[in-house]
Amino acid sequence: MNTAIITPESLLQHWQGQRKLSRKVLALFPEKDLFEFSIGGMRPYDELAKEMIGLASAGMNGVATGKWETTPILEHFNHEVTITTKQGLLDAWDEVTEQVPIEHFHDKVAAFGQYENTVIDTILYFIENEIHHRGQGYVYLRALGITPPGFWETY
Amino acid sequence: MNTAIITPESLLQHWQGQRKLSRKVLALFPEKDLFEFSIGGMRPYDELAKEMIGLASAGMNGVATGKWETTPILEHFNHEVTITTKQGLLDAWDEVTEQVPIEHFHDKVAAFGQYENTVIDTILYFIENEIHHRGQGYVYLRALGITPPGFWETY
Repeated sequence: MNTAIITPESLLQHWQGQRKLSRKVLALFPEKDLFEFSIGGMRPYDELAKEMIGLASAGMNGVATGKWETTPILEHFNHEVTITTKQGLLDAWDEVTEQVPIEHFHDKVAAFGQYENTVIDTILYFIENEIHHRGQGYVYLRALGITPPGFWETY
Repeated sequence: MNTAIITPESLLQHWQGQRKLSRKVLALFPEKDLFEFSIGGMRPYDELAKEMIGLASAGMNGVATGKWETTPILEHFNHEVTITTKQGLLDAWDEVTEQVPIEHFHDKVAAFGQYENTVIDTILYFIENEIHHRGQGYVYLRALGITPPGFWETY
């Protein structure tokens, strides 16, 4: 028997908590290092943050609508348009927080029953991809001599 | 209304997939670097892997039994006993994979209904803590000139 253990409300709350922690990591980067510092040939952290923002907005929009396309919010992320400041990234982050996930998350997720794992797997992928890259951000910050927030600071 | 979207079976399967990827990262470390290499004053990767093993065994055992104590499997992780080889860590990893999570996970998780989030939050914490530290392992590997597995290689 399949017993249900996660609700859409709790999963959204959980993700938003993770996103709050991710925002703190983003905010800790020095302006220059955010766009330039890297280790072992990896992407600088601005690229990782843009991926997080893209999955939470265009990705979540794709889950919700079935259309995998760039939304107005994500015009920032067209290849022709680039965010080049930390404040610009933080603003885009907050825009996504306020709009796409909250708007689409519940209705779409609630529409799927317990035998449909496609959507939940996709959302878990978004969350875990964010945590994966954020963990890399912790190493970047430590290498820069900056103390990252505690892993539990999802508030 | 709370609609259920994750089952114990799918969550366990998901975690075991993540653990397979984590094992690949562990296996890629050169013997010496596993215990010595670090960036920015962080713990070497053996310490991070031990934390993952500890949460998956003693932590999951605590969730399942309500008793937060060291299990026989985890005698390795007493402060008096230390694993000092990569093979020892891989063996401990496999021991945990075969025993504790599969044995206890389903019964305990299935006992909780959709309004009880304590257990699921704890399990998500275990999974995400693992992904967080594994992401740091990716940076270590890149810094050592070693290509880590793709994030999707959870098989």
